[in-house]
Amino acid sequence: MTPLSRDAVQFRDGFWRKRQELIRSVTLPAQYNWLRRTGRIEAWRLRWRTGQARQPHIFWDSDIGKWIEAASYSLMQQPDPALRRRVERIISLISRAQRRDGYLNTYFTVVEPGKRWTNLRGAHELYCAGHLMEAAVAWHEATGDDRLLKVLCRYADHIDRTFGRGPGMKRGYCGHPEIELALVKLYRTTGEKRYLQLAEYFINERGRRPHYFASEPGAPGEEVPVTSAIYQYTQSHCSVREQRDAVGHAVRAMYLYAGMADVARETGDRSLAAACRRLWDSVTHRRMYVTGGIGSTRQGEAFTFDYDLPNETAYAETCAAVGLVLFAHRMLQLDPDARYADVMERALYNGVLSGISLDGRRFFYANPLAVVPDNEPFLQPPMAVERQAWFDCACCPPNLARLVLSLGDYLCSTQRDTLYVHLYAAGTVTTQFARFTTETDYPWRETVRLTIHPRRPGRFTLALRIPGWCSDATIDGRAPKLRRGYAILTRNWKPGERVDLRLPMPVMRLDPHPRVRQNAGCVALQRGPLLYCVEEKDCGPYLHQIILPHDAKLTARFEPRLLRGVTVITGLALRDARGRPRRIRFRAIPYFAWGNRGRGEMRVWLRQA
Amino acid sequence: MTPLSRDAVQFRDGFWRKRQELIRSVTLPAQYNWLRRTGRIEAWRLRWRTGQARQPHIFWDSDIGKWIEAASYSLMQQPDPALRRRVERIISLISRAQRRDGYLNTYFTVVEPGKRWTNLRGAHELYCAGHLMEAAVAWHEATGDDRLLKVLCRYADHIDRTFGRGPGMKRGYCGHPEIELALVKLYRTTGEKRYLQLAEYFINERGRRPHYFASEPGAPGEEVPVTSAIYQYTQSHCSVREQRDAVGHAVRAMYLYAGMADVARETGDRSLAAACRRLWDSVTHRRMYVTGGIGSTRQGEAFTFDYDLPNETAYAETCAAVGLVLFAHRMLQLDPDARYADVMERALYNGVLSGISLDGRRFFYANPLAVVPDNEPFLQPPMAVERQAWFDCACCPPNLARLVLSLGDYLCSTQRDTLYVHLYAAGTVTTQFARFTTETDYPWRETVRLTIHPRRPGRFTLALRIPGWCSDATIDGRAPKLRRGYAILTRNWKPGERVDLRLPMPVMRLDPHPRVRQNAGCVALQRGPLLYCVEEKDCGPYLHQIILPHDAKLTARFEPRLLRGVTVITGLALRDARGRPRRIRFRAIPYFAWGNRGRGEMRVWLRQA
Repeated sequence: MTPLSRDAVQFRDGFWRKRQELIRSVTLPAQYNWLRRTGRIEAWRLRWRTGQARQPHIFWDSDIGKWIEAASYSLMQQPDPALRRRVERIISLISRAQRRDGYLNTYFTVVEPGKRWTNLRGAHELYCAGHLMEAAVAWHEATGDDRLLKVLCRYADHIDRTFGRGPGMKRGYCGHPEIELALVKLYRTTGEKRYLQLAEYFINERGRRPHYFASEPGAPGEEVPVTSAIYQYTQSHCSVREQRDAVGHAVRAMYLYAGMADVARETGDRSLAAACRRLWDSVTHRRMYVTGGIGSTRQGEAFTFDYDLPNETAYAETCAAVGLVLFAHRMLQLDPDARYADVMERALYNGVLSGISLDGRRFFYANPLAVVPDNEPFLQPPMAVERQAWFDCACCPPNLARLVLSLGDYLCSTQRDTLYVHLYAAGTVTTQFARFTTETDYPWRETVRLTIHPRRPGRFTLALRIPGWCSDATIDGRAPKLRRGYAILTRNWKPGERVDLRLPMPVMRLDPHPRVRQNAGCVALQRGPLLYCVEEKDCGPYLHQIILPHDAKLTARFEPRLLRGVTVITGLALRDARGRPRRIRFRAIPYFAWGNRGRGEMRVWLRQA
Repeated sequence: MTPLSRDAVQFRDGFWRKRQELIRSVTLPAQYNWLRRTGRIEAWRLRWRTGQARQPHIFWDSDIGKWIEAASYSLMQQPDPALRRRVERIISLISRAQRRDGYLNTYFTVVEPGKRWTNLRGAHELYCAGHLMEAAVAWHEATGDDRLLKVLCRYADHIDRTFGRGPGMKRGYCGHPEIELALVKLYRTTGEKRYLQLAEYFINERGRRPHYFASEPGAPGEEVPVTSAIYQYTQSHCSVREQRDAVGHAVRAMYLYAGMADVARETGDRSLAAACRRLWDSVTHRRMYVTGGIGSTRQGEAFTFDYDLPNETAYAETCAAVGLVLFAHRMLQLDPDARYADVMERALYNGVLSGISLDGRRFFYANPLAVVPDNEPFLQPPMAVERQAWFDCACCPPNLARLVLSLGDYLCSTQRDTLYVHLYAAGTVTTQFARFTTETDYPWRETVRLTIHPRRPGRFTLALRIPGWCSDATIDGRAPKLRRGYAILTRNWKPGERVDLRLPMPVMRLDPHPRVRQNAGCVALQRGPLLYCVEEKDCGPYLHQIILPHDAKLTARFEPRLLRGVTVITGLALRDARGRPRRIRFRAIPYFAWGNRGRGEMRVWLRQA
C-alpha cells in the first residue's frame, strides 16, 4: 500500500480539524516562543561560549526540527506569511550553521567541538540529524523551497561518508533511532539510493558484536550508566532480526521499528518485515496500555515485562504513543490489515491526544491511567498530575503538534485499484481514481457518509475499515463482508454515489487481560474509539471506592458545553466507603479530556462487581 | 510502667527461643565475618589512609555498635567465651580509637579529620555515637565490665560540652535521630542527669528556626539534596510538639519518637507525651501496613501520605519495623494500653521477622507485601525479591539481631503492684512479686498456661493482655473483663496457682481500610498474631488471579515439616484466568516465612468475591 500524497486530504469541520486549528493558532506560536526564550533558536547562530547562559543541549536541534516540520504541515493546509517568515529565518540560521564538510549540529559545534561522533550511544547526534531531515522534507513539500533539503542532503552525504563498513569508516549507529526513518523520507523525496542504503546499514549494524557502544569513550549527556542495560535501553542488545520482545526506551523502540518497516517496504526484505511483525505483536499484545500508551516505567522511560501495566506509575510517554502511530502506519502499508489501523486509532484518540490540554497550551509528558494528586511529590519528573507548559527535555509538545497537523497522511492508502480508508474524519480526499467527501461527526456519532466522485471511468475498490471495536457495522443498512478488517466495495462508481457507513457505538466494557495483575477485577469503558475515565470533579475523591455492577445501565450523551463538547457516559454505580456500598450516579469522560478542570483524582480502570 | 530488668526473663523451648538460638549460633557469627571482611572492625585501628581500599563509611560505627549490643544480649542468656573474646577485642580497639577530648568516630578521625560536626544533617555522627552508647550499656549489663561504658560516657561528656544553648556551643542535632534514646539509656545506667538533659535538648531544639541544617556547609555522604524536603526527611520541619503527621525517613521517625517517649516518661513532660500520642496515631492508624511495616516508598525510605500503602513497591524497611517495636514499647510504658502492645506484636511477628530467612543467613531490607520476580530489574536496590546475605548499608541485619535477642525486655512491665504481661512466650519470668512460668506454643496454639509462684505474701495483680485480634478469649474458661485491653486478675496468689488463658485463633479475614486504594476489593488472612500470604510455590504464578469467595471455608493446620514448622491456611478459592473462574485449592503460609523456597510470586492481599 501507499499513503496518499499529503495534499490529497482537506479536513472539514470536525474533530480533527478543530484540533489542527487549535495547534495552528495557539500551540505552534506558543512553542515558537518557548524555543526562542530557551535559546534553542539563538543556538544556531553558534555564538555561545563556555560559561554563558543557555548552553546548547544535545537535544535542541531535534526540537527545532520537529517544530519546523509541524509549521510546514500547517502552511500546507493554510497560508500564514508570518509563520512562513519565522521558519525561513530559522532555515537561514541553520544553513549558515552548516560546516564546510556538511556537518550540522549546534552542540558539537560550539560546546564540544572536538567530540563529533564520539558518543553515539548517548549524545543524540544522528537523532538530531534525522529530525532536521524530516523538517527539510516537510518544508520542501509545503513550499517547494529546497534550500533546507539541500543542506540536509549535504549533511546526509557527510554522514554517509562517515558511517559504514568501508575502510576508515565508523561502524556505529545512533543510541536513539530516528535517522533510519528520516533517511527513507529523504530517499523518497530525492530518489537518492545511498540514503536508503545508509538507513539499511544503520538498521543492520545495530546490535552486532563486538558492540560499538562498548568502544566509545566518555559519555556527556548520558542518561543511563553504561552497562549491558544500555544495550536493551537502545535496542542494540542483539541484531534487529533477533529481537523478539519490545524492550528499552519506548520512543527509541518505536522510531527504530518504524524505520525497520520503512526499509522492509522499500527493499522487500522479508526477514526484516518478519522482525517488525514479531515486535509489533510484542508491543501491542503484551506491552501496551488500553490507551495505546507504551512504556510502563519511568526508569529508562522503558518497557518492562509482559503484561506489566501499572496505572498510577504508567509512563506512557506522549512521544511513545506518537511513535506507535508512526510504527502502526508503516505496518499498515506493509500489510493491509485493519489491526494496525485499530492500534493507530487507539493511540491517536487516547494516548496521544491526552498529551495536550484542550486549550492547546499545556502538555503531559507521561500519561498515567490513574492519578491521585497527593502522590505528586513521589512521582519522578517529568511525571506529573497536571499538564505543563514546557519541559526541559521538550520532545513531546512539538512531536504531538507535527503528528496532528500531518494527520491527513494517515487517513487513506491506495494499493493498485483499491482505495483503503483507515480513519474517518470529515473532509475531502482526492486520489487518482476519485475524489470523495466524508461527512461525519466521528468519534461522537455513529454515521459516516462518503460521497464518491470518480475521476475516471471503470471499476475500482473502496476498502472501508470496520474498526475492531465495532461489532455490528452496516454499510447502506447491510452487514458488510470483511477482508482483514476492511469492507470491500468493488463497483463502477457513479458520480455522486453515496455510501452510508454506520458504526454503532454502544458503551463497551473492556475486561483486562487476565495476566495484567494491576487491573484484576476491574473494567474500563470505551465508546467508539474513545476510552473513558472518571474524574474527582464528577465523582468525588477516592475513585477506587467506585464499583461498577455487571449489569449497570450505562448511557452516552453528548454534552456540548462540557470540555469543549464531549460525549459522556453516565450510569448508576456503587461506592464502597465503609463496607456498605451505596448507590451513586457517576459520569465518565473521554480519557483524552482528563485533567482540564484542575487537580484531582482520575481513574481509567474501575472496580467491577 | 517499668519494663523488667533484662535478666528477669528466661525463654524456654518455643517460637522465640528457637529464633534466638538461630541468631546466636548462625546470624551473629556470620555478621561478625561480614563486619570483618568489609573493614568495619579494622577501621577502628585508624590506619586507613586516602586512596586505600575499604574506606571507613559514615555509617560503619553504628553497625559495630548494634552487633556488640546483640552479642551482649546473647552473652546475657548463654555464656560463649569465644564470642566474649571477639567483643572484648573490638572494645579494646574502640577504646584506643578515642581521641584525647573524648571524641570517637572512625570516619571523621581518618577520612575527614577536619570536618567533625560540620554535617550533622547527613553524616550520622551523633547517630553512630548513639549506637555505641547502646552497645556500652548492653555490654555493661551483660558482663558488669564498664570499660566501654566509661569510653562512651567520656564521649557523651564531649558531646554535652559541644552541643547546647550555652555560649560557643553548637545549636545542632543529628539528621538521623538515635542519640536521644541512647542518652536516656546512658542516664538510666549511670544516673547522670546531664545525659537526660542533653537528650531533652536534642529533642527540643529539633526543627527550630532559623534551621540549623541550613547553616551547614558541604554535605559528604548526603542522601537527599538540601531542599525543604530534607527537613521532612529528618523530622526537623517543625518543632517536635508541632508535628502531627509521621513524615520523612521512617527509621529516623521511629528513633526520634522513641526518644521523645523516653524523655516524656523520665521528665513527665505532658506536651511531649501528647506529641508522641498524636504521632503514634498518624503512624498506626493511617500509615502502617498490615504487617506492621512502615515507610511506603523507596524515595527517601519514607512515609508518603495517609492511606497510601502500595504492596509491590512497599519499602517497609526491616529497621523501620524494629523502630516501631521500640516506639510501641515505650508508648506502652507511658500508657498501659494494649493497643500499643498489639502493634508491637504485629510488627514483631510479621514486618520484623520477615527481614530474616529461616536459616538465619539472609535478610530483607525492604519487606514488600507482593512480589512478582519479573519486576526485580525495575526495583531500586536495596529492594529485592530475594533476601541477601549483606548490604553495603548494613543497618537491618544487626538491628534485627539485637531486637530478637533482647525480646525478654518486651514481654512484661510492672506498675506498682501490677504485673503486666504483654507478649506470650514459653519461659520463666521473675519479678519482685512472683516468679511465673509460661507454657505455650503461641503463636501456633491457642492456649497459654501461666503458673504463678508468689515471692512474698499479699495481693498483687496480674494484667494479661488480650490481643486486639482475639475476640473471645477466656481465662480459666470464662470471658475476662478488660481494662484497656488487659484482663485484670487481682488475688492473693497461692504458690503454683495456674491461669489458663485461651486465645482462640480462627482464621480471620481482614478488610482493608476503605481509603487504601491499593487494596480495594481485597482481603488479607490472619491467624493469631500472624499475617498470611500466598506464594507461587504453593499456588502457581499469577497470584492476582486468585479470588477468595466470601464464604470460603478456611482451615488452619500445623505442618511440622514445612518451613521449619508453620501453621498453614488452606481452602478452596477461585482462579480467574480467562473470565471463567475455576475452583482451586490454595495454601497460605505465614508472611514472615515467605521467600524461603526460591524465587516466585508472593501476595498478602487477595482478591475477594
